[in-house]
Amino acid sequence: MNQQLTPPPAKKRLGVAMIGYSFMGRAHSQAWRTAPRFFDLPLTPEMTVLVGRSEGAARAAAEQLGWAGSETDWRRVLEREDVDLVDICTPGNTHAEIAEAALRAGKHVLVEKPMANTVAEAESMAATARRARAAGVHSMVGFTYRRVPAVQLARQLVAAGRIGEVRQVRTQYLQDWLADENAPLSWRLDKAKAGSGALGDIGAHAVDLTMFITGQRFAGVSGLLDTFVPERPVAESFSGLHGTAGTARGPVTVDDVALGLARLESGAPVTLEASRYAWGRKNALRIEVSGTTGALAFDFEEMNVLNLYEATDDATTAGFRRIQVTEPEHPYLEAWWPPGHGLGYEHGFTHQLVDLLTALGSGTAPSPSFDDGLHVQRVLDAVERSSAAESRWTPIPPTVQDGAAASVPDGRAAAPAH
Amino acid sequence: MNQQLTPPPAKKRLGVAMIGYSFMGRAHSQAWRTAPRFFDLPLTPEMTVLVGRSEGAARAAAEQLGWAGSETDWRRVLEREDVDLVDICTPGNTHAEIAEAALRAGKHVLVEKPMANTVAEAESMAATARRARAAGVHSMVGFTYRRVPAVQLARQLVAAGRIGEVRQVRTQYLQDWLADENAPLSWRLDKAKAGSGALGDIGAHAVDLTMFITGQRFAGVSGLLDTFVPERPVAESFSGLHGTAGTARGPVTVDDVALGLARLESGAPVTLEASRYAWGRKNALRIEVSGTTGALAFDFEEMNVLNLYEATDDATTAGFRRIQVTEPEHPYLEAWWPPGHGLGYEHGFTHQLVDLLTALGSGTAPSPSFDDGLHVQRVLDAVERSSAAESRWTPIPPTVQDGAAASVPDGRAAAPAH
Amino acid sequence: MNQQLTPPPAKKRLGVAMIGYSFMGRAHSQAWRTAPRFFDLPLTPEMTVLVGRSEGAARAAAEQLGWAGSETDWRRVLEREDVDLVDICTPGNTHAEIAEAALRAGKHVLVEKPMANTVAEAESMAATARRARAAGVHSMVGFTYRRVPAVQLARQLVAAGRIGEVRQVRTQYLQDWLADENAPLSWRLDKAKAGSGALGDIGAHAVDLTMFITGQRFAGVSGLLDTFVPERPVAESFSGLHGTAGTARGPVTVDDVALGLARLESGAPVTLEASRYAWGRKNALRIEVSGTTGALAFDFEEMNVLNLYEATDDATTAGFRRIQVTEPEHPYLEAWWPPGHGLGYEHGFTHQLVDLLTALGSGTAPSPSFDDGLHVQRVLDAVERSSAAESRWTPIPPTVQDGAAASVPDGRAAAPAH
Amino acid sequence: MNQQLTPPPAKKRLGVAMIGYSFMGRAHSQAWRTAPRFFDLPLTPEMTVLVGRSEGAARAAAEQLGWAGSETDWRRVLEREDVDLVDICTPGNTHAEIAEAALRAGKHVLVEKPMANTVAEAESMAATARRARAAGVHSMVGFTYRRVPAVQLARQLVAAGRIGEVRQVRTQYLQDWLADENAPLSWRLDKAKAGSGALGDIGAHAVDLTMFITGQRFAGVSGLLDTFVPERPVAESFSGLHGTAGTARGPVTVDDVALGLARLESGAPVTLEASRYAWGRKNALRIEVSGTTGALAFDFEEMNVLNLYEATDDATTAGFRRIQVTEPEHPYLEAWWPPGHGLGYEHGFTHQLVDLLTALGSGTAPSPSFDDGLHVQRVLDAVERSSAAESRWTPIPPTVQDGAAASVPDGRAAAPAH
Repeated sequence: MNQQLTPPPAKKRLGVAMIGYSFMGRAHSQAWRTAPRFFDLPLTPEMTVLVGRSEGAARAAAEQLGWAGSETDWRRVLEREDVDLVDICTPGNTHAEIAEAALRAGKHVLVEKPMANTVAEAESMAATARRARAAGVHSMVGFTYRRVPAVQLARQLVAAGRIGEVRQVRTQYLQDWLADENAPLSWRLDKAKAGSGALGDIGAHAVDLTMFITGQRFAGVSGLLDTFVPERPVAESFSGLHGTAGTARGPVTVDDVALGLARLESGAPVTLEASRYAWGRKNALRIEVSGTTGALAFDFEEMNVLNLYEATDDATTAGFRRIQVTEPEHPYLEAWWPPGHGLGYEHGFTHQLVDLLTALGSGTAPSPSFDDGLHVQRVLDAVERSSAAESRWTPIPPTVQDGAAASVPDGRAAAPAH
Repeated sequence: MNQQLTPPPAKKRLGVAMIGYSFMGRAHSQAWRTAPRFFDLPLTPEMTVLVGRSEGAARAAAEQLGWAGSETDWRRVLEREDVDLVDICTPGNTHAEIAEAALRAGKHVLVEKPMANTVAEAESMAATARRARAAGVHSMVGFTYRRVPAVQLARQLVAAGRIGEVRQVRTQYLQDWLADENAPLSWRLDKAKAGSGALGDIGAHAVDLTMFITGQRFAGVSGLLDTFVPERPVAESFSGLHGTAGTARGPVTVDDVALGLARLESGAPVTLEASRYAWGRKNALRIEVSGTTGALAFDFEEMNVLNLYEATDDATTAGFRRIQVTEPEHPYLEAWWPPGHGLGYEHGFTHQLVDLLTALGSGTAPSPSFDDGLHVQRVLDAVERSSAAESRWTPIPPTVQDGAAASVPDGRAAAPAH
Repeated sequence: MNQQLTPPPAKKRLGVAMIGYSFMGRAHSQAWRTAPRFFDLPLTPEMTVLVGRSEGAARAAAEQLGWAGSETDWRRVLEREDVDLVDICTPGNTHAEIAEAALRAGKHVLVEKPMANTVAEAESMAATARRARAAGVHSMVGFTYRRVPAVQLARQLVAAGRIGEVRQVRTQYLQDWLADENAPLSWRLDKAKAGSGALGDIGAHAVDLTMFITGQRFAGVSGLLDTFVPERPVAESFSGLHGTAGTARGPVTVDDVALGLARLESGAPVTLEASRYAWGRKNALRIEVSGTTGALAFDFEEMNVLNLYEATDDATTAGFRRIQVTEPEHPYLEAWWPPGHGLGYEHGFTHQLVDLLTALGSGTAPSPSFDDGLHVQRVLDAVERSSAAESRWTPIPPTVQDGAAASVPDGRAAAPAH
Repeated sequence: MNQQLTPPPAKKRLGVAMIGYSFMGRAHSQAWRTAPRFFDLPLTPEMTVLVGRSEGAARAAAEQLGWAGSETDWRRVLEREDVDLVDICTPGNTHAEIAEAALRAGKHVLVEKPMANTVAEAESMAATARRARAAGVHSMVGFTYRRVPAVQLARQLVAAGRIGEVRQVRTQYLQDWLADENAPLSWRLDKAKAGSGALGDIGAHAVDLTMFITGQRFAGVSGLLDTFVPERPVAESFSGLHGTAGTARGPVTVDDVALGLARLESGAPVTLEASRYAWGRKNALRIEVSGTTGALAFDFEEMNVLNLYEATDDATTAGFRRIQVTEPEHPYLEAWWPPGHGLGYEHGFTHQLVDLLTALGSGTAPSPSFDDGLHVQRVLDAVERSSAAESRWTPIPPTVQDGAAASVPDGRAAAPAH
């Protein structure tokens, strides 16, 4: 916003292919269109090609969403020279095949979460990603809630010791779009496509958020899954998460609610809940971290706010501080609007690309890596196995540390576009 | 407050002996003094005698708190004809002996929570209470949070079906008075006196609140206990929960945090947490009940508020309603102040006596009964046993249904005093 | 709550007569009963006599509320030797006569707010009070919201410079008990008895709160009054603020809403609103003070909370701190319950007596004085006159500084009772 | 988001020229880029040319912000055939000249608020706009806060009678970016460029929001302006609202705070405040409307939430409903994300274009019209004149009703893009 605008030096272009164009594809497209307008990035993304199964629909989507071309076979785009990065926005059961093929073809990969539907798939993907990284081909999992400025600030404060050592975490992801027992079936309720229910869809975010903010992985968990509504009407059409019910009915094959008592590597206990039946909670991804000298609390329903308690404040004036994370000093914010002019859900996707392109531009591995994604998968798997074994404590195998996990990109590396 | 004040008919007197006069004794005394001033009760309580171990201190406390006399041996007051009810405010390890002796002596009993320190004690107490009840001698456990008007309203709304069937409960009791690792030891950290730590002290309230609002008992639980600070300075003096540390140090023999994944009789899952290490949360007894057609949320830190979501509201204007539970139509409120002129912590104790005296006056069993208290004890015990067994699912034995548990006194039976 | 209870030394008794026993009388009685139980006071209040017009009703009220005797003529109690203080809880039109007679009879006076219905009455009262004070007879106006711990803390923080110089104040007192146009008439809607409507009833509190927290008086105001519902059903009976409507109708002769733009002595602008038509706001006495280096915000609907913003906090973590004013370090709190165990409306009345008796015990003038009450009356009067003169700016005559106004008792002088 | 994407019919193109590219220019550009991606619009906007004074800077800005070309003289773009609409994002002192010239040249005009710096300019602009409209050339003022979904919902609920007749309004716009007395001067503090200070910058939004939600214009006002910091450092560079101070100092020639007591056409009183000195309030544009049967409350700092109180709810469960305005049934929302996935500040600008293009596409006059803008200007002017005349009541001349003002576009006319 300063006035000395000068022509930027020509930058390297990064050709992007996006696979899938539903809810996630729309969010990703907005991010690809927007990131270079607000941030000074080391690479200039080109929205080269969108891939969908139906030719006409893919072409219309490409035009609507701003992609230069369309394609019906994802394999073909892996052969294109003008494609440098593949952005995978399809259901989880297709992630492993596409991602591994893309990495083998030398394309960087951004894959939506959950990274995979099974631990076996995730292990294979992580192994492939490690090999690719050695060849300078990078991969990242799309846990976009990491890119909410208030979440980045939370991570920075924990890392800086502002709340001391982490003693306890309570995290929840509550929605209510299935609370109506007549809401129709979608692929998200089909274990074959979605892998799991609330657990993988939203619980995965809660697990990743905990890892990101505390800087720790999980050591073990006791889990409990339940399905409240085992059968639902079959959907005839969908718009976002909401479908129109038909007359046929079909089985729900995933969990409706996923609960866990876990421990981080340090031993700190974590309570974990994911539910799509919490009436009145629309997108309440919440985390509260209690440390030895303070605490942090975040709720995505107030996404521009972080609450901070510092026990070092004097006794008469200590209290949770409601920080509006909209100051230019806050992560990513210098590129946006004045204080108090809050951001929205989609900005997380824009920031994700900022961090991704910043890493690619400097040749460093972006984060969260596929090893991080694998670890999340192992936590989800342990919750399921524990639930099937009378909630018995289930250790989570350590994931190969890959160096990248420790790096916490905070978006400030990327300068705002002037 | 209407103007037609007429001399009330002479009422039967109820002589009360209170054992203990610390934090709980002060709260109970304020309630005994206040209840008859604001409510039209069927019995007139007389603050007959306060019992404490030291003669001088007991006499001074009696004078300060408004008791007619004092005594140093609780056994002696059981022999007094002018004592009809014994109010037990001592640490948990003494409850069983005093309560059973009092019941056997034909005295009604009000005992502070947790009812006992072990299931065995609680079973014995409950058995004695059942026998006494047959003889018209009644007993009640002091879960005062039931008497918060917003909690009563929550119970009424669930019972009336306003949120449909209960699907899920999340409940927490968070405090931070132990978060400072230099806060000194107290009897509350000594397993011999307190039975357990956060589990019995505050977790018991969360368990009872869940039972009360849902109208259900627990079927089983997976638990996890932890102690963050195993050793602390020995306290030299205490004021409320806060003590002054000395130089000696001693071991903490109870849990600092208690976590559970549980199920109610209906199968509804419950997440449960009790912690005294949650910086910034001073007395956050919270419960959220998600039903099939709505939800309720309560936090004691806003004790005069109940939040209600009704899915039957039209889609454009549905939202959690922040009900200020201070209207004359609300439980107990007709006796108090105009709308918005909120009540405080101690009013729960006053209302507890209103409900107790109302029950005694009509010859019905007050609630929560010792059977209820026993059930809470079994839940706490199951959390401990599960925690010791790799968090394995631990069924909770059903408690003899006693009829009284189902009755939910709501304080409105008692007319306000005019 | 410590254990070294020793018999307190015999204290001087203070015989109290209370005139009136409706809403305010009930609140005052609870305070007289409670203050000596929780605080170590230099004088021991005796609830000597309650005065009401009807003999039977007064006797019943005295018994119910805990007064030793009753009387039907307030003049008679002024002659009694066992009465040292007169507590006036009648409608505003009777205050001047009773208060002045009491002071002349050598009785200390506590008078409910608004101190009077006209400036002339208030001037006379203030002059009498000044003369009485010279003879050691003291007087105080019952602005109890000053005694809310969060309000005391606000005053202390402003006085300590924690928010710098006061730049602006916004204050509101919003209720909704008249928003229903069929709510019946009461004496509060009758200019002859109440003096004014929202202005004097609740606006007076907002004016006093502003004076108390900023430590400044008002210099001038532009006002606007309005009456939304000029005619209402006549009430047949009343309970608190709520009456039962009859079929007859009568005129509302007071304002329904009172608005003002004012300036403090320092020139700082103040926005002022009092309304009993703000649906959903039950007792929202609110104030926000913006200073040169910070801000304070309070809302009585969360009476145990004070919000503090400090601009000196670092830019990334600045935010309003939600202080739960329930710590033992907070004003009055050492005498009560552990942190987070909030107080209620009536505690303001108890604390008022603590401060009053503390002042009387030390022979100093209690605050707010009748001079303060006169100043509030002048502000209310200026709002009315401005409203009648096209909202023209109306200077407020300075009130004789009496020394007492500057003293801000904070309740901590009084030790909690042990 | 449904899958039947078919090539849309070719639409008429609308060539756009944007004058200015600072804070507002960046927000407008994002809206021009984004609106056609998410909404199915009757016209396809083309970002034809950006105009700035410096050639190099304008060219760089055009490239950065996505405009096809750049230009240094706004007069030249009025001659271009490929420009159909002029979007004016310059300081207020230039609006009249550019807007009138554009309208005379047959170009539609969107002008940022405040529409002008004086009533005389605004009258001239409104007259020109009325003439142009007769020729099918349309104009609109950029009060984007109207386009926040929660604000649209508020308007709809008032219009539908959900809160009855409007009795009172309280509205505030609070920021704190000038509260630091060392924050440097900017054109916003220069009366010659900005016209006024808080009054025109943010007070104008509060005035318009009140008009929009109530559907009423203002009848009169009593005002009070003040300047807290009359001199500040001169800024050396700016980024958004924040500049870097130099050593020179200069005078502040505008108001720092603007207060008003006003009345709507119906007589309903309105309290009005605009301040940039309210520490801790970052962008708190707030409005509360109290009606005869309910109330609405909005605060931009929680922009995705509307609070609604309905007095028709039963007495035990009435309370402000916290509506998350993120459901597909809500204004504009069907085009965006699932419930709870909130929008940000910039979405108001996107929705503004949606409503503008929808109106242009159907040949109807968009709203708010220049007559609306003129009325806002008259309110601001009356506040200033009243403030200069001892806050005396100042009637606001009625503005020629133009028919357009009554139409309240709610964004739902525009279908989301599929």
